[in-house]
Amino acid sequence: MFDIDVNYYPRETLIEFAVAYLQRLGASTEEAAIVADGIVTAAGRWHPGKGQGLEKLFRLTIQCENGGIQPGAEFEVINETPAIAHVDGHKGFGYVVADKAMHLAIGKAQNVGVGCVVVCHSNHFGQAGYHAETAAKAGMIGLVMTNAAAEMAPWGAKKAVLGTNPWGIGIPRADAPPILLDMALTTSGRGMVMWAHREGQAIPDNWMLTTEGRRSTNPADFFSADENAIVGTQYPIGEFKGYGLSLFTDVVTGVMSGALFGMSCFTDITNHDVGHFFLAINPDMFMGRDQFNTRLAQLIAEIKQAEPIDPDGEIYLPGELEFRTQAERRTTGIPIDSATVDKLRVLAAERNVDCPL
Amino acid sequence: MFDIDVNYYPRETLIEFAVAYLQRLGASTEEAAIVADGIVTAAGRWHPGKGQGLEKLFRLTIQCENGGIQPGAEFEVINETPAIAHVDGHKGFGYVVADKAMHLAIGKAQNVGVGCVVVCHSNHFGQAGYHAETAAKAGMIGLVMTNAAAEMAPWGAKKAVLGTNPWGIGIPRADAPPILLDMALTTSGRGMVMWAHREGQAIPDNWMLTTEGRRSTNPADFFSADENAIVGTQYPIGEFKGYGLSLFTDVVTGVMSGALFGMSCFTDITNHDVGHFFLAINPDMFMGRDQFNTRLAQLIAEIKQAEPIDPDGEIYLPGELEFRTQAERRTTGIPIDSATVDKLRVLAAERNVDCPL
Repeated sequence: MFDIDVNYYPRETLIEFAVAYLQRLGASTEEAAIVADGIVTAAGRWHPGKGQGLEKLFRLTIQCENGGIQPGAEFEVINETPAIAHVDGHKGFGYVVADKAMHLAIGKAQNVGVGCVVVCHSNHFGQAGYHAETAAKAGMIGLVMTNAAAEMAPWGAKKAVLGTNPWGIGIPRADAPPILLDMALTTSGRGMVMWAHREGQAIPDNWMLTTEGRRSTNPADFFSADENAIVGTQYPIGEFKGYGLSLFTDVVTGVMSGALFGMSCFTDITNHDVGHFFLAINPDMFMGRDQFNTRLAQLIAEIKQAEPIDPDGEIYLPGELEFRTQAERRTTGIPIDSATVDKLRVLAAERNVDCPL
Repeated sequence: MFDIDVNYYPRETLIEFAVAYLQRLGASTEEAAIVADGIVTAAGRWHPGKGQGLEKLFRLTIQCENGGIQPGAEFEVINETPAIAHVDGHKGFGYVVADKAMHLAIGKAQNVGVGCVVVCHSNHFGQAGYHAETAAKAGMIGLVMTNAAAEMAPWGAKKAVLGTNPWGIGIPRADAPPILLDMALTTSGRGMVMWAHREGQAIPDNWMLTTEGRRSTNPADFFSADENAIVGTQYPIGEFKGYGLSLFTDVVTGVMSGALFGMSCFTDITNHDVGHFFLAINPDMFMGRDQFNTRLAQLIAEIKQAEPIDPDGEIYLPGELEFRTQAERRTTGIPIDSATVDKLRVLAAERNVDCPL
């Protein structure tokens, strides 16, 4: 089923391990619970070994030990109105800062219909979609953005200045998982290019540009001469459109928050200084919830009833495949790749944490 | 310079004509001024004859005469908090409804940092970027969305269910035109495909999908057998990503507003019932304006200094080329294609309006 060796573990086992390990890194009970849920939820939905699951513990270990992450950091609301808040994350766990920021936005949306929270001095917060889902679980429409390391060139340029700047969008549904869009503003990610390079496979010619701004289907063209590092730039969705969306994202997450932005973001692992943006919108301010649910169900029905190109295919809502995967893994357990398991065993042993993997 | 015959007119002449013509259609002085400014501003920035300028008067004429647009319609605020408003446009001019809605959002953002206005029962509002620019002129970051006729298939499907659902994003700058992104969520527009078909030119294979879901570089493959109508579907930016963004857009503009959505929107010319979404964010709530301007200028400098792929090229901000075009046309006048001029002369004569074209 997977192209790598994996072992399967119950979600509870992974949560228990991640919580114990994070506490050993200095996380409080609350912080450990939030980070563990973010990491293990990602592991439960995505392909193992691609960097979205328990692998996140590697960088978290480095950053908790070098001061890049400060467990117990204050979540400081610098300025606030009934509708917005400006938050300083004080180098806390990005997952925790983002979780608190989204809950703050939700509270404001419950009161005045919309909540907009902008955060500086944070860290990598996991999946943007995870935090958008938090809004949807509370009955809100959520829009989440973050800035990221410079990997995208402005359209027409050779050099990366902007990040892939991921977005998460959550839309609540009655009696069903939310519509959940989790996406970067680039056509692919570095992980996919590295995978294709390792496997000797061609890639579409709109995944990256070389350092000279050329397209290529050969992943090797995007690597440094020693083949150790990717040096090309990620290709924006819709070309100048994705460039524009990424610029907008960096303005509201980085420039406006007081975090780093542009080529500076994510360059110093002791001070990533990431910026985030959280928007929660309350549909109840616009119509009765039953009416909203009914109308949304009508739109979904139109989508689901559209004839698929593949006669055996099916039309999916954003996030639907991931929710199915998550449901299946409640039975099978969550696959973790062997390389990650091996490395976690070593990290845990070094820190005297019991490792059930 | 252009591939069609054009005549050049001063902006003032076009405004004067459009105002007089719209008043003859029943528009009030205020309505005529707003609509004329939207139409003539678009004509001043874009390629003539592609449907963005004075050509809009054709459909406005039909709709004012068939009841699809109701001059003098009430701009009704159905529900309101300090941060949001739900507006019924009562079939007013889309340009006017949108202009008032954005000003309402700006006022809220001035007070509480963010303003979110959702509108039902409106009409085509012109360029999304035009209304985002209104926010930027007031010092706000603006995000504008609208739903539109179904032209995009859900990713993996053959049938159009969602619109190109244009977005406008405006970011204010000190002493310079704003960053202004005006874009549909599809890789191209029908107008560009029709143009290529007429000229016998090939198009990129990610502009449309055929009714069977195939890619093609031959525009004829997307037309009906009699070649009179486009029957293929527009290709979403970033494939499933653009589909997800379009779905999100239809939820906040159509489903949540009480307007039409999905396959129903824009189908009945006597009742387009379009929905819009306007968000204004006030940077002053997050940092001093000088600091915001300085930081934004730093990001722009990083972008502008990135080496261009074309050695004679230049890196542009979103909207920058259109602002340059607009500035040039202050000297040259605004080009209007002959076909449009001819048709406007007839329409004006039929309605006893002096036509200076």
